[in-house]
Amino acid sequence: MFTLFSIDGGVCAPEGFFADGISCGLKPNGQKDLAFVYSDRLCDIRAIFTSNRFQAAPIVHFKKHAIETTNFVLINAKNANAMTGERGVEDIEMVLSHAKSIHKNIKNPAMSSTGVIGVPLPKAAIMQGVEAFDLNTKNPDTAAKAIMTTDRYEKQIAFEVKLENGETFRIGAMAKGAGMINPAMATMLCFITTDAAIPADEMAPMLRMCAETTFNAISVDGDTSTNDTVMLLANGASGIYEREAFAHALERVMHELALKIVADGEGASKCVSFHVSGASNKEEAMMAAKALTNSLLVKTALYGEDPNWGRIASTIGASGAECDPQKLTISFSNVKVYDKGVILFDVEQEKKAAAVMKKSAFSIHCDLGIADGEFTAYGCDLGHEYVKINADYRT
Amino acid sequence: MFTLFSIDGGVCAPEGFFADGISCGLKPNGQKDLAFVYSDRLCDIRAIFTSNRFQAAPIVHFKKHAIETTNFVLINAKNANAMTGERGVEDIEMVLSHAKSIHKNIKNPAMSSTGVIGVPLPKAAIMQGVEAFDLNTKNPDTAAKAIMTTDRYEKQIAFEVKLENGETFRIGAMAKGAGMINPAMATMLCFITTDAAIPADEMAPMLRMCAETTFNAISVDGDTSTNDTVMLLANGASGIYEREAFAHALERVMHELALKIVADGEGASKCVSFHVSGASNKEEAMMAAKALTNSLLVKTALYGEDPNWGRIASTIGASGAECDPQKLTISFSNVKVYDKGVILFDVEQEKKAAAVMKKSAFSIHCDLGIADGEFTAYGCDLGHEYVKINADYRT
Repeated sequence: MFTLFSIDGGVCAPEGFFADGISCGLKPNGQKDLAFVYSDRLCDIRAIFTSNRFQAAPIVHFKKHAIETTNFVLINAKNANAMTGERGVEDIEMVLSHAKSIHKNIKNPAMSSTGVIGVPLPKAAIMQGVEAFDLNTKNPDTAAKAIMTTDRYEKQIAFEVKLENGETFRIGAMAKGAGMINPAMATMLCFITTDAAIPADEMAPMLRMCAETTFNAISVDGDTSTNDTVMLLANGASGIYEREAFAHALERVMHELALKIVADGEGASKCVSFHVSGASNKEEAMMAAKALTNSLLVKTALYGEDPNWGRIASTIGASGAECDPQKLTISFSNVKVYDKGVILFDVEQEKKAAAVMKKSAFSIHCDLGIADGEFTAYGCDLGHEYVKINADYRT
Repeated sequence: MFTLFSIDGGVCAPEGFFADGISCGLKPNGQKDLAFVYSDRLCDIRAIFTSNRFQAAPIVHFKKHAIETTNFVLINAKNANAMTGERGVEDIEMVLSHAKSIHKNIKNPAMSSTGVIGVPLPKAAIMQGVEAFDLNTKNPDTAAKAIMTTDRYEKQIAFEVKLENGETFRIGAMAKGAGMINPAMATMLCFITTDAAIPADEMAPMLRMCAETTFNAISVDGDTSTNDTVMLLANGASGIYEREAFAHALERVMHELALKIVADGEGASKCVSFHVSGASNKEEAMMAAKALTNSLLVKTALYGEDPNWGRIASTIGASGAECDPQKLTISFSNVKVYDKGVILFDVEQEKKAAAVMKKSAFSIHCDLGIADGEFTAYGCDLGHEYVKINADYRT
């Protein structure tokens, strides 16, 4: 048994972690655009990266150096350092080597970037910025702000985990992303810190497991960025670890940040859970649920607050999952509109379903009625603001 | 050798074919909403249908009766007769049996529908409409108009095909669709008539072959309707047939109508050819090309006339096709912006690329530089009008 307590402090909540965000001139008007996460003792670090075949230079750099321990991660917004070839990696090496020469404590630094693809890293500005860092600062809010791009608000979270015997450890995180996954300006990045004494070899499998139901279950626009990154830094400062408690806390942290990203989806006004059950297996449930989060017709119907269940049925039918109109049921929250071949969509029921859709968060349940495969994916509506943001983005 | 001559007359251009459209009250304000295609002699008919697992009642009906010869196809707009279960099929049987009782010449009739999913077919209105048909009418324009939904204009085409020996046959067609494939109100339907004496067993394979590079290569919104249908009716009236000439004419008819559907994409202002070459094989070229037509970020960049080539690269990287940033080239028409790792995107080049994007039709070429797999897919931009149409559609 264990208990989670929500606490302040984001990535700085766990013992020994520091973070700050400054402006180095990449964003206009002196907005914060460069952040770091630092630990006063060496951390184990593991990361999961985008499945995009054109992985950005920071990812190539991380893999090239096979970074497994570190105490410093540098993050910039406004430039993705993607499609920049070998020069992109060399630029990172220059920036990080400069950081080490200024801040002698830094060991095996890593970098992470988000922003426009195909523009060389503005390394002079970033190096100047790094010179201004004070590594002993705990400004998690400013760090979370500095990594934002089209995000409307910063995203962070922290928990203290209390084990049954009274021992505690902490986990904190910050994330950015307003398109999952928008390759131009809204790459999804997440940095998780912990003082739990997690064995290094448990980190990567646990990250991957938790990602499946959290960051890999959300979609804003169905695009997969060149830069997506989730990093877990563990410095062991608490000396405490319990596998089950840590896995639970990690899943919770990633789940809540994933939902914050969906809720902050570019132009989005609604966060919708698509719960698919009764599929042939989990993979098919996932196919159907993700198809729903990515269907333009479903997304525009959400925006229009129109309980157009036909679009939901049609999307499931086209998803590739095994299904049968005589076995399918569809509900908006607890309002059933289609039940195994019977349309329950009279004026009264339509009104009730429309009322559900007016909420800023609700769920849509689809039971395929075939076996017990189940998955929940999280999506948002698509409205005029999305078009505006993405049509006018670079200009 | 053969020559194609563009002619008027749409589906009525081939000998022995008749068509008309009337209003039976499904659309407001007396707009045409019910059409027929009739042949004065029996036709062979073959059709290809949506891959959606929830195929609409007209498709279920067609398959149930294993229709292989016919002289009459009835088409209604405004109601898809989809997700309507057995009742949907019974409704069609009632409507068509009524048609046969009124018009004694009708044999093995088929039906096709487009419109809202999940609402019972308004069969009384349709039966009344059928009574008003005059089967000896040649009003192809009116028929093409009656099957429209969110289409901005009717789509039809016809050719006379002249063989080397001077013999001729004709092929004509009409189509509707403004979302490929929009399950709510913009299902893609296409009816092709010919007086060529094509052997019945050559019809289906030829239809499937031509669909691959035409209707299956276009996307407006990535959604696949419950009702999509392409029907080919051949009455042999000309007595003439040459396989190569017919295949060419059929491909041309389907290609031109497919492009008309993309150009009329809901809210679309641009028709873009995505030409992918140099892929490992044709399937991977198709994956990459179709991913480009479906990427929201690419579509909104097209709308914004923003030559944001990074989004194109990122979409290819995420498409699943084998690719390598050191081998990829990207051009907007003939303006190369990325060449095997080298970014050619200075101010001058960006201006030229932006000028290409201002056109209403242009191509984007992506060479993956790996092998010789090649495919062209056709897409359109996504702008405010799309959101407006689809958010407010049912209301």
